[in-house]
Amino acid sequence: MKGKVYLIGAGPGDPELLTIKAHRVLSEADVVLYDDLVSPEIVRLAPASAHIENVGKRCGKAHVSQAEIHTKMIAFANHGLDVLRLKGGDPLLFGRAGEEIEALREAGVNFEIVPGVTAAFGAAAAAGIPLTDRRSASRLVFLTNHRCTGTNVSFDASIGSGNVTAVVYMPGANYRELSQRLIGSSFPPHTPCLVVSRATSGEQRILSSTLASLADAESLPAPSVVIVGDVAGSYRGDGKREAEATGDITSTVDETVSPLP
Amino acid sequence: MKGKVYLIGAGPGDPELLTIKAHRVLSEADVVLYDDLVSPEIVRLAPASAHIENVGKRCGKAHVSQAEIHTKMIAFANHGLDVLRLKGGDPLLFGRAGEEIEALREAGVNFEIVPGVTAAFGAAAAAGIPLTDRRSASRLVFLTNHRCTGTNVSFDASIGSGNVTAVVYMPGANYRELSQRLIGSSFPPHTPCLVVSRATSGEQRILSSTLASLADAESLPAPSVVIVGDVAGSYRGDGKREAEATGDITSTVDETVSPLP
Repeated sequence: MKGKVYLIGAGPGDPELLTIKAHRVLSEADVVLYDDLVSPEIVRLAPASAHIENVGKRCGKAHVSQAEIHTKMIAFANHGLDVLRLKGGDPLLFGRAGEEIEALREAGVNFEIVPGVTAAFGAAAAAGIPLTDRRSASRLVFLTNHRCTGTNVSFDASIGSGNVTAVVYMPGANYRELSQRLIGSSFPPHTPCLVVSRATSGEQRILSSTLASLADAESLPAPSVVIVGDVAGSYRGDGKREAEATGDITSTVDETVSPLP
Repeated sequence: MKGKVYLIGAGPGDPELLTIKAHRVLSEADVVLYDDLVSPEIVRLAPASAHIENVGKRCGKAHVSQAEIHTKMIAFANHGLDVLRLKGGDPLLFGRAGEEIEALREAGVNFEIVPGVTAAFGAAAAAGIPLTDRRSASRLVFLTNHRCTGTNVSFDASIGSGNVTAVVYMPGANYRELSQRLIGSSFPPHTPCLVVSRATSGEQRILSSTLASLADAESLPAPSVVIVGDVAGSYRGDGKREAEATGDITSTVDETVSPLP
């Protein structure tokens, strides 16, 4: 009797932003294979009896290869164990789920996907801004800046044209280059943007800027997302402490614990 | 003492895909103002003592205006009641949250946003396909096809260029026009696509097609999303009953209750 593999989204950070289903399946798992971006508080929700293993691959320290992750999932399931493959945010966005699904199908292992709240939604909720607005943003695009090979993902030259909000995942620490690449993708330099670091966690920080000023801003700790577009200009930081201003008049850093005003 | 307003995402349909936080806040609400797209099973999780009201505006039957929704939220909060503004999916995507946030700020009403699992993630999880893939889709774009005025939202001519997955929300029933508009936005006619209707609910149905063939496909019940891009070609409908084939060899309809194989 084979076990089953669950590809599960752990949400943006706050354990309360797990889905009820993810929480239920996690609390019953035999094996948990989790990525570096998953909060320790969430990993701790697994049963004490479970085999728990960090298979995170972050740029520069790939201690477990993608092929090894496949091998582990399949081997545990073939031993009759239910395997929880836990990924930050939603499992189907920027998470190599396509390759894991193919490997499971080829091995004849039963699997199920449990969607999650992606980092962009956690970040926008924490900042109190919409991601689309019928008056200024009719389309939302998710980009990733870095490949783990160290090369950048190319941005299409017209991404910023029209009424669009962009969210950049894995923006990296080189904001000057990111600013230039976004401006080169048709976003005007005065476009508002927010960097939201560790959204919905106790270490959440928000930097409000424009694309032009972002080039000189202090970089915030990963994981973070950068929200670009007119909607970012509606950020008010209502009632929140503003700290570590970068010296740039349009950039403020806001350190918060709770999600909203 | 004023009450607080919670803008909450109800997720894609399955009540188990509510977040733990959304479920907690819903179970304590004094007032629930919900949109038509929210599952009845989820609305039923509110306390029996709560004032519960459908303020849904679907195209053609706008029984409560946007301004009236603002007035209601503010009036209930000013009476000291905690108000749950419940929206399908995530509250910050295609949901007029920007206008509601502005109205609450102007009225000095305290609010908090609780993010949710958007329909696209529910649909892709149910279909067993990734939304990005480092080999074929480095960017994900969310579009909406219809405005409630009956006019279409314009699609940028280059949306389909490069390695992209698009998800169309509110695709409407005119698949011929949608197919033409997507092909006009640089998606090749042979691009794979999936229509996922009522994702993660008991009435879920999936139609697998290409953009060219979509023009002649039978339309599926709302709410639905259309996923467009090479990732849609990895749909296998593993172990599921295929029914109501449209006669088009590339289009199959798959009726499912449970999310995956």
